[in-house]
Amino acid sequence: MSEVSIPASDSFAEGAAMHNIVRELFPLCRSITGPGLRETIRRIGRRIPLNVHEVPSGTPVLDWTVPDEWTIRGAWIEKLDGRRLVDFDVCNLHVVGYSRPVDAVLTREELARHVHTLPDQPDLVPYHTGFFADSWGFCLSHAQWQSMTDPAYRVVVDSTVAPGSLTYGDLLVPGRSREEVLIHAHCCHPSLANDNLSGIVVATWLARRVLARPNRLSYRFVFVPATIGAISWLARNEATLDRIRHGLVLSCVGDPGTFHYKRSRRGDTEIDRAVVQVCRDRGLGIAVRPFRPMGYDERQYCSPGFDLPVGCFMRTPNGEFPEYHTSADNPDLVRPEALQQSYEVLAAVMDLLEANLVYRRVDGRGEPQLGRRGLFRRISAEKHATGQEALLWLLNLADGTRSLLDMAEHTGLSFTELNAAAELARDAELIVEAE
Amino acid sequence: MSEVSIPASDSFAEGAAMHNIVRELFPLCRSITGPGLRETIRRIGRRIPLNVHEVPSGTPVLDWTVPDEWTIRGAWIEKLDGRRLVDFDVCNLHVVGYSRPVDAVLTREELARHVHTLPDQPDLVPYHTGFFADSWGFCLSHAQWQSMTDPAYRVVVDSTVAPGSLTYGDLLVPGRSREEVLIHAHCCHPSLANDNLSGIVVATWLARRVLARPNRLSYRFVFVPATIGAISWLARNEATLDRIRHGLVLSCVGDPGTFHYKRSRRGDTEIDRAVVQVCRDRGLGIAVRPFRPMGYDERQYCSPGFDLPVGCFMRTPNGEFPEYHTSADNPDLVRPEALQQSYEVLAAVMDLLEANLVYRRVDGRGEPQLGRRGLFRRISAEKHATGQEALLWLLNLADGTRSLLDMAEHTGLSFTELNAAAELARDAELIVEAE
Amino acid sequence: MSEVSIPASDSFAEGAAMHNIVRELFPLCRSITGPGLRETIRRIGRRIPLNVHEVPSGTPVLDWTVPDEWTIRGAWIEKLDGRRLVDFDVCNLHVVGYSRPVDAVLTREELARHVHTLPDQPDLVPYHTGFFADSWGFCLSHAQWQSMTDPAYRVVVDSTVAPGSLTYGDLLVPGRSREEVLIHAHCCHPSLANDNLSGIVVATWLARRVLARPNRLSYRFVFVPATIGAISWLARNEATLDRIRHGLVLSCVGDPGTFHYKRSRRGDTEIDRAVVQVCRDRGLGIAVRPFRPMGYDERQYCSPGFDLPVGCFMRTPNGEFPEYHTSADNPDLVRPEALQQSYEVLAAVMDLLEANLVYRRVDGRGEPQLGRRGLFRRISAEKHATGQEALLWLLNLADGTRSLLDMAEHTGLSFTELNAAAELARDAELIVEAE
Repeated sequence: MSEVSIPASDSFAEGAAMHNIVRELFPLCRSITGPGLRETIRRIGRRIPLNVHEVPSGTPVLDWTVPDEWTIRGAWIEKLDGRRLVDFDVCNLHVVGYSRPVDAVLTREELARHVHTLPDQPDLVPYHTGFFADSWGFCLSHAQWQSMTDPAYRVVVDSTVAPGSLTYGDLLVPGRSREEVLIHAHCCHPSLANDNLSGIVVATWLARRVLARPNRLSYRFVFVPATIGAISWLARNEATLDRIRHGLVLSCVGDPGTFHYKRSRRGDTEIDRAVVQVCRDRGLGIAVRPFRPMGYDERQYCSPGFDLPVGCFMRTPNGEFPEYHTSADNPDLVRPEALQQSYEVLAAVMDLLEANLVYRRVDGRGEPQLGRRGLFRRISAEKHATGQEALLWLLNLADGTRSLLDMAEHTGLSFTELNAAAELARDAELIVEAE
Repeated sequence: MSEVSIPASDSFAEGAAMHNIVRELFPLCRSITGPGLRETIRRIGRRIPLNVHEVPSGTPVLDWTVPDEWTIRGAWIEKLDGRRLVDFDVCNLHVVGYSRPVDAVLTREELARHVHTLPDQPDLVPYHTGFFADSWGFCLSHAQWQSMTDPAYRVVVDSTVAPGSLTYGDLLVPGRSREEVLIHAHCCHPSLANDNLSGIVVATWLARRVLARPNRLSYRFVFVPATIGAISWLARNEATLDRIRHGLVLSCVGDPGTFHYKRSRRGDTEIDRAVVQVCRDRGLGIAVRPFRPMGYDERQYCSPGFDLPVGCFMRTPNGEFPEYHTSADNPDLVRPEALQQSYEVLAAVMDLLEANLVYRRVDGRGEPQLGRRGLFRRISAEKHATGQEALLWLLNLADGTRSLLDMAEHTGLSFTELNAAAELARDAELIVEAE
Repeated sequence: MSEVSIPASDSFAEGAAMHNIVRELFPLCRSITGPGLRETIRRIGRRIPLNVHEVPSGTPVLDWTVPDEWTIRGAWIEKLDGRRLVDFDVCNLHVVGYSRPVDAVLTREELARHVHTLPDQPDLVPYHTGFFADSWGFCLSHAQWQSMTDPAYRVVVDSTVAPGSLTYGDLLVPGRSREEVLIHAHCCHPSLANDNLSGIVVATWLARRVLARPNRLSYRFVFVPATIGAISWLARNEATLDRIRHGLVLSCVGDPGTFHYKRSRRGDTEIDRAVVQVCRDRGLGIAVRPFRPMGYDERQYCSPGFDLPVGCFMRTPNGEFPEYHTSADNPDLVRPEALQQSYEVLAAVMDLLEANLVYRRVDGRGEPQLGRRGLFRRISAEKHATGQEALLWLLNLADGTRSLLDMAEHTGLSFTELNAAAELARDAELIVEAE
């Protein structure tokens, strides 16, 4: 992870508030189903008016079937004298997700087949899950495993895998237009802070922002377990997917690394360009990557049968920071100022989408006489007033074929400058929104 | 300005003749209206059969209105003892264009609000104008202004701003086709040689050239004051603007700097490519710039309601040579050999446009047998004759979809070579002009 | 010629067999007509079931006319005492192709006008021909010519140029589809090994390969004299040329130099891309060049009236190795391992064309559940199995708009990997061939 410098501010109030929720949600043992997921959705629902859905186990969703629900009550490895060495209650990463119940004494050799460690990061507990395997397992630090030299241990997993349901939450904030912006966060990782909680809290804050004001576009927020949750949501919302005009999957947005953006499958949609433009206008670096069918739930939105304009917004990408999928992805890795900066960039992306209209000149023949409208410097040799160049560009390019974002890309001017010029020109009745 | 080496020639007869006219027209005090403009148009009309037009003040033209006419008879600053320090009769840049009449004694401090100087170029008089401001002003060298330390001065501007008309001249030279090439020069700058006179004389010489011969294309020459003149011309010729297939605004073509070309708004029209091709074929450097809605009257031709294929041809661009808009832009800055080279390049551009046809093979199946037509080297191992390669390319590419310019760009061969091959092939009835 | 390292192999059995045929055909005196050409076609016909065609002299073919047939029985230069210095029987390059009969005593000066040498390569005999010139000539090493200082010599050419026919051979190997792959080799050069024989033998071996198996595509092999032969073939097969979907002219494929590929006139057809992809997948360098209307018979296929997707596959291109068109282009220049590698690359190109289908997902909504089909790693943290990435890409891109080659270019994966994934997915009924 290459850290970026985030400008000092007197107040990262929003970042701090988001960080508090990261801490609050961290201990819950989330998975693709179960009480930890359900409680997480419920707590998001305390901050925004989420619709909570339960999809029964066995429900067919596209090519998949909603699995049985996993309930984990406890799990440990103990010495034969009863002393617990490894305990789910201490760290929920210790148990492999969807572990089936077990209560047995095993030789160390037998146990080894159920143990996962990270020899290269000997002090960290890895995160593993195995949804559809009828098995169980433990994750330990390699150092601890090396120190466990007894010939045999007792292992207990107190869990249930049984018919239940998959929980997800969503929220539609209607705007003047039915065209939608989708914001997606996955909620299925247990005690992992950057990978899942950071996206959840930033998505929640973005929802609060659009709830607090009138919007041109509609906004849809989706909080689901990865893959099967996204597939369930898509299966149940298929009739209205064509309203999604822009979408972002949020993940790993709380670390202090450089921004990364993974393009949608189409690769050059408005959202793909908007994210880059906002970072460019703010002087923020952003590494842009092409779409690949590996990663987060953009895989589902960008499957060939949907092919929606949905990209993935991250700071340091999954798999590229050493804490990824380990016990070191904890609330200390996530920083209030990084959460806030991510939130601000995404808020600016929304503002860009709101304002990114196509204009045309009321009368496109020649330059309009700016002087009599108070829009021109009065003596020809004076320096151009700030904004004069943006206004001239806008009036030249406003031919009903280009959005403001097109103009920003063409001219190198910032979206903000061009939008300010558009407001001046619209007030002067020189341009109108093109149909 | 980076000077280019212009090949020595025994004769720059045309350059010298053009330079004489620059000297002749230099003293006239041109503006966007008035006697100086009218006299300039009249003198161009002595060389080519210009149609002279007068557009009355108050005439609505597109979004604008033709202004009152400005007549300047004299202007000076004198000491209170009557000694004249600054005098319009010495240099017409001293008075700000469209200065309203004044006769008053002012303190130096009051006067300072009406004085323009160039502190960084203390010996030069700047050029300023203020068409629509109800004011007056003087331009002085900074050195002179620094030396003027009296507590008060008398200022006189003997001028009239009153209903009259705006003068312009144009000329249509009809060719076999109604498709037109537009050549435009602005005529509204007072004693400035490179910025306005150089374009005027080169445009005049190009007109003489097409008048002296039959042409395929029609040519339209336009001599107008900048902005309001171009807008007036466009307003009065709107019905036939669609005949303009290629156009060039000429300005600053008399200094010895590198050629510069500013593309049309569309950016890849035939004229945009023809200018570059001619320079490439002649081994002349040319810096090509994208369209911007700042600059000369290409702004009007390239407004979104017209969007005509009109670029701007220059040597050193406006604002990029230190003499620009100062008293140093005088006939010594303009050189006969530079005028002549600009003229020759533009003449070659016209020749290219005349010859840039689309051909197709009469029978495109296989190579034609060149030998029996005397078009092939006789022994296969001999080196290709000069032109053989161009002929083979032409015969391969002549499929009715590509112009000769397309072929030159595709092959890297010169337009001249390909045109020579096309003439051979046409004479041999191997190709015909495509409809 | 820059040599490439060809991996050592225990067996270059096919290369060795091809090389034997190069040796066998080398002594025949081929030209664009005549007994040497006819015998060459006959001997190819011993290996593959070629259809042999004779086109009578005087037959109009496109813009050309089939010439009289040339028969050469002997030719020599002798001293006036009868001692032969230069003899066609020793090296058939000594006589200029299509030399008319002569039997005369000439001064050395008169003879010099009929003698061709290579002063820069004084030990080599050049290859010259002059189909349509009513003349005769000899090719000698420059060293020999320098040593011939007698005042006069007797020259004899015992030849006939008389009505006869032009011989060519072709073979269609029908596949399930009528879409054809064209493989073309020219057969008109006398004792030159790389330039003509290498292409002939590799084309023959490719024909044997497709004859030995069922194919999706049809294959058409064409063995003709250059230019007039290709034109004759095109004239007589015009009705079915639209079946040619991919084509390659083979030449100079027996030297150990780097592969070179000259694109078709269209420049981005499937064959143009297939050749590059095969070399990339095998880690073989290949220099790609744009189409030019100079070279081999791709000139005829790529004439504007046909514009077929035919490129030219070579190792060191014609004119770029010092032995080109000299007596040094002999069977020692051609190497068994180079022939074999060329053959293998071309065989792989054919395999790519056979397999390059367009697939679409049976149900493109979301990712399919690979696990229940045995296509997914079972524990999420395990490393991706080999091929997992190719499978995910295939399932994402299979939207009925992209061929496997498109996918290979898009993803950087090898065609082979993607084709293996496609076979898995097809077997699992996840994809079908798009119509």
